[in-house]
Amino acid sequence: MNITFITLFPHEMASFFSKGILGKAIDRGVFNVTYLNLRDFADPPHHKVDDYPFGGGKGMLLKVDVLDKAIQSIPNYQEARIIYTCPKGSSFTQETASSFSKESQLIFICGYYEGIDDRIFSLYPIERWSIGSMILTSGELPAMTMVDATVRYLSGVLGNKLSLENDSITSGLLEHSQYTIPRCYKENHVPGVILSGHHGRIAEWQRKNALKQTLLNSPHLLVTADLGLKDKELLSQIIQEETQCQL
Amino acid sequence: MNITFITLFPHEMASFFSKGILGKAIDRGVFNVTYLNLRDFADPPHHKVDDYPFGGGKGMLLKVDVLDKAIQSIPNYQEARIIYTCPKGSSFTQETASSFSKESQLIFICGYYEGIDDRIFSLYPIERWSIGSMILTSGELPAMTMVDATVRYLSGVLGNKLSLENDSITSGLLEHSQYTIPRCYKENHVPGVILSGHHGRIAEWQRKNALKQTLLNSPHLLVTADLGLKDKELLSQIIQEETQCQL
Repeated sequence: MNITFITLFPHEMASFFSKGILGKAIDRGVFNVTYLNLRDFADPPHHKVDDYPFGGGKGMLLKVDVLDKAIQSIPNYQEARIIYTCPKGSSFTQETASSFSKESQLIFICGYYEGIDDRIFSLYPIERWSIGSMILTSGELPAMTMVDATVRYLSGVLGNKLSLENDSITSGLLEHSQYTIPRCYKENHVPGVILSGHHGRIAEWQRKNALKQTLLNSPHLLVTADLGLKDKELLSQIIQEETQCQL
Repeated sequence: MNITFITLFPHEMASFFSKGILGKAIDRGVFNVTYLNLRDFADPPHHKVDDYPFGGGKGMLLKVDVLDKAIQSIPNYQEARIIYTCPKGSSFTQETASSFSKESQLIFICGYYEGIDDRIFSLYPIERWSIGSMILTSGELPAMTMVDATVRYLSGVLGNKLSLENDSITSGLLEHSQYTIPRCYKENHVPGVILSGHHGRIAEWQRKNALKQTLLNSPHLLVTADLGLKDKELLSQIIQEETQCQL
């Protein structure tokens, strides 16, 4: 997979993706990332990428000609899915990440200032995607977030495939609480059952805890989760225990 | 406002926040950002920050003792709001950003691997926040996204206060399309009315276009938007025009 970011901050983005799980995956050639500096496509001597909007209004708009030249410079841009990060866009979710991960080429346009000359949307089939209902100073963080969620699906990015499958959200329930060494820290003990070595009891505790986390934090997930009879029994136990605590 | 990130990638985060609108605001002292390297709080010689979960399971957990030491090292941590980025969390929205912006101190714990030893939540009143229903390789991007949305509310970050007020989402409607030079690019002209200099007509075109963008992309916003009689008239015009296009 080839990913291109069109940005004013190519070095800062590259620095961020140079480390951790994603940095290692790039080093191994699982996917390629290119950072195009939008300023390189603006006319000298001032390399101006933005200008005032016609008809009045505050802020500056990215210029259509500069952005067009940047896109045209990308090999096989015609075959790429082009994404513009924008609060006007559709909501990016785990399903979007999965869909993006099946593409061979993605181009991300990072927005700035007040926006972008609207004619770019007449020139290219650009998709608008939003990571949530929040407003940011620029589009790099949403673009990087979308890429992070997407490349986790590529074979060779995560060491253990299970980490992907068993994660919160994709499993239908939130994850159960987990504990590691030390066994006791500042009088907080790891629950005894977890240390018991009894696989059956541990599995039941984990399932019950996952149901409890979901009930308390994201109860809407219970509607669509695949629950058995035993789960429903555990849920009524949890409700009884939680309401007793409050008395 | 003082913001502290607890992270394994302090340099990469610092690099990202060194440029653009946020970099300038930090330089002017509008807010301070500190990057704590979690590894500095783990015991030598290996500075191990994570370990295997008790009771089995894949992946590694951040250790409670290491994280506790990192938090304790932050001056006045007792007065800070502590945020853990987590898909289990509540949905971070523009209202959350506004609420965060009223705090004097924020601490962000960036998550990794499979999660975090659950006992940290017994030691501190940590809030779990999620930027959306997607799973990421680590918590830096959500933490930075939350900070970006938050600090835009601080006086002195945005040059023009209006940019904040008039933005998409906060205004109730999506923004209208905007255009800048050149007037014609590859046979795509800026709509004539925008160049007319007639303020009344421009304002009407912009309102109608904002209604159209909202209707086509985020129709749910129309339910809560403050619409006048004229807006409703424009909306029925738009619906007529759009359905005619499809015939």
